[in-house]
Amino acid sequence: MHFGDRLAAAVAARESQIVLGLDPDPQKLWPEAVAAATGDTPVARAASAVAAHCVAAIDAAGPACVAIKPQHACFERLGADGQVALRRTVEHAQAAGLIVLSDAKRGDIDVSAKAYAQALLGATPTPFGDVEGLGADAITANPYLGADTLAPLIAIARERGRGVIVLVRTSNPGAAELQDQRLETGETVWERVAGIVALLGAESLGPDSGLADVGAVTGATVPEHLVRLRELMPHTPFLLPGVGAQGGRVEDLAPAFAPGRAAGLVTASRGIVNAYDQAGGTPAAAARAEAERLRALAWSLGG
Amino acid sequence: MHFGDRLAAAVAARESQIVLGLDPDPQKLWPEAVAAATGDTPVARAASAVAAHCVAAIDAAGPACVAIKPQHACFERLGADGQVALRRTVEHAQAAGLIVLSDAKRGDIDVSAKAYAQALLGATPTPFGDVEGLGADAITANPYLGADTLAPLIAIARERGRGVIVLVRTSNPGAAELQDQRLETGETVWERVAGIVALLGAESLGPDSGLADVGAVTGATVPEHLVRLRELMPHTPFLLPGVGAQGGRVEDLAPAFAPGRAAGLVTASRGIVNAYDQAGGTPAAAARAEAERLRALAWSLGG
Repeated sequence: MHFGDRLAAAVAARESQIVLGLDPDPQKLWPEAVAAATGDTPVARAASAVAAHCVAAIDAAGPACVAIKPQHACFERLGADGQVALRRTVEHAQAAGLIVLSDAKRGDIDVSAKAYAQALLGATPTPFGDVEGLGADAITANPYLGADTLAPLIAIARERGRGVIVLVRTSNPGAAELQDQRLETGETVWERVAGIVALLGAESLGPDSGLADVGAVTGATVPEHLVRLRELMPHTPFLLPGVGAQGGRVEDLAPAFAPGRAAGLVTASRGIVNAYDQAGGTPAAAARAEAERLRALAWSLGG
Repeated sequence: MHFGDRLAAAVAARESQIVLGLDPDPQKLWPEAVAAATGDTPVARAASAVAAHCVAAIDAAGPACVAIKPQHACFERLGADGQVALRRTVEHAQAAGLIVLSDAKRGDIDVSAKAYAQALLGATPTPFGDVEGLGADAITANPYLGADTLAPLIAIARERGRGVIVLVRTSNPGAAELQDQRLETGETVWERVAGIVALLGAESLGPDSGLADVGAVTGATVPEHLVRLRELMPHTPFLLPGVGAQGGRVEDLAPAFAPGRAAGLVTASRGIVNAYDQAGGTPAAAARAEAERLRALAWSLGG
């Protein structure tokens, strides 16, 4: 099944466009997860606590969400044990019916891009048998190296009904420094990248949804660009980070939803997982309430 | 000790500017490494073979090199076992006196960039004790998200005498698509990035070498840009991929070496490790001979 159609079906079935960002910091885990840590070494204990934290957050907030977005950096810092925790998180989310958008932001030359695709979306042939990768439903990717480095990611994703979500205009303050530069053609760098993303996605639209399997990261912190981004990428699912801790507001995101609700996925990480800092109560109850608040708010904007 | 000074001292001591790229493909490992595989599962066997392959390549070609450049994608596709293989490769190289340039091409918003820095260059505080990262001497990084996302990598690298090597003009054909675009200011995108890299590096030059701890990836496939790149980044170590399989020639790289030999590191991966395909003989002997040929050729260009 085409990734765009899978996404649209999941959004409709769950009545949610919310993506639960999982950026586990071992110093800021839910207390129940720290208490449940097992293992003989600091890294094993930390990784088991991280996995327990992610599982608990999925159990709490997942019912109000359509997907999770694990931040690879947070798992990589725990080495091999962190990879086990990441895989457990992915499997738990998928078992709960959630789509997994792996936030890896990979980008490399063709042969290495193919290896990343095998690692995250596909499988690797070896003399000892095929080795299955992480099994993410989609990954984020960086366009700086050019479309020839995105193509191997997209090829393997497409074969398996999975997706690739390309950074177009990110949510951080420094994004302006390069992405907002104006080219001599009059376009900004992000407009040029948006054009590349639209072309790559137009090769294969979901027959039911009309959505592409190549998405775009478009920061929720710059809603003033959303109309133009949507114009340049009419069939592209947008992943909208930056709500909450980074200052973005769901209310400002309606242009992203124009082709349908599944075309605008709103991601919140610390805003959901650390909601108990503000709201009080248990971490799980606060996370569930905040995810549900965001879900209802985004859904109310229509599509 | 400052990374620029470490690099210069290692290049002088080893009389080499050659970086051994390690991009292990499980289907194209040295036969001795496949024969030595151990483990109960396909992934464990593949990862043990990958580690044996990398160790053998380091033993063979390492004496003619100053550094290794492991390609993270190739290890990531073997999951947790791949991380064990990567760590064994890093430790073996460092024990042999080689610098480790981790080719991870990471780039993410500030809090995630810090997590990548902890993973690859630093350590992660946890309630169970600090968890040491991979211990690379430098990592490659992607500038698309802007300087505020490079800063956390550089901060942690600098604290520990390590480095960050930023993609400026890459070696792949599609690099032209975005990096060669001309801005309305008249600069190309890569010139703009080069300016950012030069500024970030100028904050801290090695007292002995005058080299920065922020390097640049500048493809050996576009030697016509090297004079301009050097002008924009006078103190920046250049990592020059693309020699061999991608068509770059060592003879064309002299402008990179202008501030001193350590300012131009020539990386070759398949050209060294698969030299036996062309040259015959054992993989080890062919790799050693090719690395030594490249070493002597680059060294003869002066600095």
